[in-house]
Amino acid sequence: MPEHPDLGWVRIPPGTPDIAATSGAAARQAQLTKPPGSLGRLEHEVLRLAGLQGRERPAVDRVQICVFAADHGVVAESVSAFPQAVTAQMIDNFAHGGAAISVLARSLDARLEVVDLGTVVESDAAQGVRRQRIAPSTANFVNAPAMDAAQMAQALAAGREAVARAAADRVELFIGGDMGIGNSTSAAALACGYGVGAARQLAGPGTGLNAEGVRRKISVIERALAHHREQLHAPLDVLRLLGGFEIVALTGAYIACAQAGIAALVDGFISTAAALAACRINPGTHDWLLFAHNSAEPGHAALLKALDAEPLLDLGMRLGEGSGAAVAVPLLRSACLLHAQMATFAEAGVAGRQA
Amino acid sequence: MPEHPDLGWVRIPPGTPDIAATSGAAARQAQLTKPPGSLGRLEHEVLRLAGLQGRERPAVDRVQICVFAADHGVVAESVSAFPQAVTAQMIDNFAHGGAAISVLARSLDARLEVVDLGTVVESDAAQGVRRQRIAPSTANFVNAPAMDAAQMAQALAAGREAVARAAADRVELFIGGDMGIGNSTSAAALACGYGVGAARQLAGPGTGLNAEGVRRKISVIERALAHHREQLHAPLDVLRLLGGFEIVALTGAYIACAQAGIAALVDGFISTAAALAACRINPGTHDWLLFAHNSAEPGHAALLKALDAEPLLDLGMRLGEGSGAAVAVPLLRSACLLHAQMATFAEAGVAGRQA
Repeated sequence: MPEHPDLGWVRIPPGTPDIAATSGAAARQAQLTKPPGSLGRLEHEVLRLAGLQGRERPAVDRVQICVFAADHGVVAESVSAFPQAVTAQMIDNFAHGGAAISVLARSLDARLEVVDLGTVVESDAAQGVRRQRIAPSTANFVNAPAMDAAQMAQALAAGREAVARAAADRVELFIGGDMGIGNSTSAAALACGYGVGAARQLAGPGTGLNAEGVRRKISVIERALAHHREQLHAPLDVLRLLGGFEIVALTGAYIACAQAGIAALVDGFISTAAALAACRINPGTHDWLLFAHNSAEPGHAALLKALDAEPLLDLGMRLGEGSGAAVAVPLLRSACLLHAQMATFAEAGVAGRQA
Repeated sequence: MPEHPDLGWVRIPPGTPDIAATSGAAARQAQLTKPPGSLGRLEHEVLRLAGLQGRERPAVDRVQICVFAADHGVVAESVSAFPQAVTAQMIDNFAHGGAAISVLARSLDARLEVVDLGTVVESDAAQGVRRQRIAPSTANFVNAPAMDAAQMAQALAAGREAVARAAADRVELFIGGDMGIGNSTSAAALACGYGVGAARQLAGPGTGLNAEGVRRKISVIERALAHHREQLHAPLDVLRLLGGFEIVALTGAYIACAQAGIAALVDGFISTAAALAACRINPGTHDWLLFAHNSAEPGHAALLKALDAEPLLDLGMRLGEGSGAAVAVPLLRSACLLHAQMATFAEAGVAGRQA
């Protein structure tokens, strides 16, 4: 089958971080009035951001958060603790400012976009939501491809377009968020499809399944993997067969961030599955990703390990929406401010280490 | 020996958290538009703050940071990678806004106080430093008490007075910081004196000792423990024999926070040693302490365990000054904002969990 014509962009290699900026930042870091290395991870993150932003004093003042929302056909298998109508209801909640990510975006002075990629019940929100509906939901991937190639191309493009808007606003950090009842089943299936582990290791309670629910979810994923096993090879095929529209949009967004030279801060389990897809499709994407937190969803640790990622926070969060990434932004801001504003030993007249 | 007359206050029992406010906050939390528990540690911290502040919607907008600085006689034993003059030079750096904690305090819109409890070289800062100098330094505790009872009473009172100023400003969170070349030797000795472990487990590189320096530091602490062993029983005696003026002031501040009903956010290794002293002297203090981070100093984990504390962050920081606590403040602010501002299921018209 020839590849869909709108997919060529996803394989364009991103640039690489600016080594000179990283070196310049490291030289400055060595002169600041503190024992070398004493700011720990904050120093490491500043060096990475310096390389990604191409400047010795990086900043993350301008942050764009884009939440992608969509419904999942696999919810027919009873894999979620919440009814499917909640996806659309939460879109309204984002638009009206009452969701966790709405509160966090306000507190960060970040721009929040919500992209509706298709829900079974339509949301009511009159404004504040970008309608890019592909279908009411994906197909139930237990016995059918979650989506066709044209739908996947549409979802990837939705992510790319969100990043293009962010680039036009000269954002310094992009955060993608997810909303979609059932999407931890899709994310776990993707992780299995990419060889991270078995369904029993990667499926977890999501929003709150009990033990019986988790067993059902594992079985659903195992049936899906068996059904599709002849086709689960190329990274884009895995994504098309097992993904969700919002997960595919996140995948497109991460690839587009890398291509546009914008650092992306990855949220939790769903986002990390999308990040893995992005890195499998286009390995250069990895350089441009920062990882915010280790979620309470048990499969997240394996996904992070597959990406060689050590997240900043470990707070037992498991909400999605980009919320864990938003909570981590102040750490990056503190790191950048310390780097930019601390006095050097020479400026402050402070003695350095003894020989 | 009769106790010093100015020490009676340290044993006055603090009040206890407000259970009704905690229950009210938990009831609100259960109605917010998110899966129950999905904000993880942030939910836990909000419930604690609700109890400490006696209100269902706590806040940490008003933050006071007080850095206590002092020199240590034990520096004569070559236990630090930096020269002793750095204590006073850093006081100047705090006052001039160039230190890490200065940058962080500005970014948090927190009030920063610097209290000089005695340095070998006097600092130059004309303003921005509160002079409460007890002596140029403690005595070298290898073969003498670090301080006498009157000096300890003065240092404890300096901490209490800082909290009284914070209380007058109606602060919602108190952060104590430390500056004192050599103070990780004192903190490790205190931890040993309180039975947390052996010197080889609790002494670490501090600001950057090499392996030989750490061995020397262990030996210095072992000699001190042997010298004082007949007197290392009552918690206040341990503090007097092995403490530093800034550590004692932090101890007094934590006790005073508890007595004043103000939540205190504990920083790293030095601050946690002071928190342990405070809890040994006045066990009710423990209820009023939050723990910000697990520092890179290897003995910190044992100190935290002795206090049954699970800190919010683990970023490999080891700077002191209150910096790790300051970096954690935005997490508490995010937790409080989410709790106060998220919509309830009823307000947002979002369906709850399925039966």
